[in-house]
Amino acid sequence: MRLRNKPWAVELVNNHPESVLQDPDPGKAIDWHSRFAKPDQPLEIEVGSGKGNFIITKAKQHPEINYVAVELQTTAAGIILRTKLAEGLDNLQILRGDAALLDSFFPQHAADVLYLNFSDPWPKTRHEKRRLTYKSFLQTYQNVLKETGHIEFKTDNAGLFSYSLMSLNNYGMHFDFVSVDLHHEAPEIVANNIETEYEHKFAAKGNPIYALHAHF
Amino acid sequence: MRLRNKPWAVELVNNHPESVLQDPDPGKAIDWHSRFAKPDQPLEIEVGSGKGNFIITKAKQHPEINYVAVELQTTAAGIILRTKLAEGLDNLQILRGDAALLDSFFPQHAADVLYLNFSDPWPKTRHEKRRLTYKSFLQTYQNVLKETGHIEFKTDNAGLFSYSLMSLNNYGMHFDFVSVDLHHEAPEIVANNIETEYEHKFAAKGNPIYALHAHF
Repeated sequence: MRLRNKPWAVELVNNHPESVLQDPDPGKAIDWHSRFAKPDQPLEIEVGSGKGNFIITKAKQHPEINYVAVELQTTAAGIILRTKLAEGLDNLQILRGDAALLDSFFPQHAADVLYLNFSDPWPKTRHEKRRLTYKSFLQTYQNVLKETGHIEFKTDNAGLFSYSLMSLNNYGMHFDFVSVDLHHEAPEIVANNIETEYEHKFAAKGNPIYALHAHF
Repeated sequence: MRLRNKPWAVELVNNHPESVLQDPDPGKAIDWHSRFAKPDQPLEIEVGSGKGNFIITKAKQHPEINYVAVELQTTAAGIILRTKLAEGLDNLQILRGDAALLDSFFPQHAADVLYLNFSDPWPKTRHEKRRLTYKSFLQTYQNVLKETGHIEFKTDNAGLFSYSLMSLNNYGMHFDFVSVDLHHEAPEIVANNIETEYEHKFAAKGNPIYALHAHF
């Protein structure tokens, strides 16, 4: 979802380069080691974090894991940053940049998990290449993930989910978990699910939430 | 769905051995060549035909293809048979027998398409092996299908569909088509869909219909 521009968010982001990387130069390695309080922890990345409810909840629950929220919109980045600062989450970094450049932002095979939550469905066939589960993105994720790593994908969009099942399968990925009705799975699965803002809203209308976990 | 036993159906099936094979001996090859008016046509098989709306519609639409309806219940076989006889469908045969023995009923790599429509979901984990998309069934289908052949699977059951996506992917099958909302796909896809009796009933309640086409 495109957020209305909030001037305070732009200012906050500009004032906190230690927490937010903005449009990093794809040709230059980022010194992630210096950006985390405990740099040797596992690394998990969310691509398209929106207002950040998911990754903030993760970062609070798991201080033993480092998180990077990748988000294109400055206003969204500012909203995440505000909470990060208020909560003192030194295991959360924000990268305001383009997901298509993801593998230039991280060393090869650095991440343990990559989250794709409720990304833009781009329903028109001519926009297929923009979908975050298009094969060129999968190639990027493969570069970023460890060999033992995996992707966790959620959406409420039937077209994007059907497409993504095809795309990941045809790429040769191995499915670890599939649900076409995540909120009605077994109680332990539902209890462990962290909802995004969108997810909460869509599920409340009775729409099914789709989920897919897969590895290369 | 289990049908109430109809004595007329049992009698009809018993009187038409030329149209219905009953519990064929798995050790003995079936002479399919002699059972079809045009034996050299492509062969398509439906596993679990119920009352047969799907396969009868197919057989009427495609006289250039031979069809076999595999169905365990004699009453269901009788209902299919009644229509086959009334319509004079010499490209449709009925096999009253157990799907687990499928590859003993056909020569190796004989079939072009295998249809699995609204099969029993067997939701309990301890019944996983009975689901028609369990890996032992997939092995059977691989034996029966030509190398160029494929499976077409439909269900209204979210649990069975999620399971089947995992099972077929983990078996190494390649997805050709996936839909988590078949009745709301593009008009040409909806127009070409042949509904089963169940499908019609479930979709009318507003439940989504799931579909998956895949090859080995």
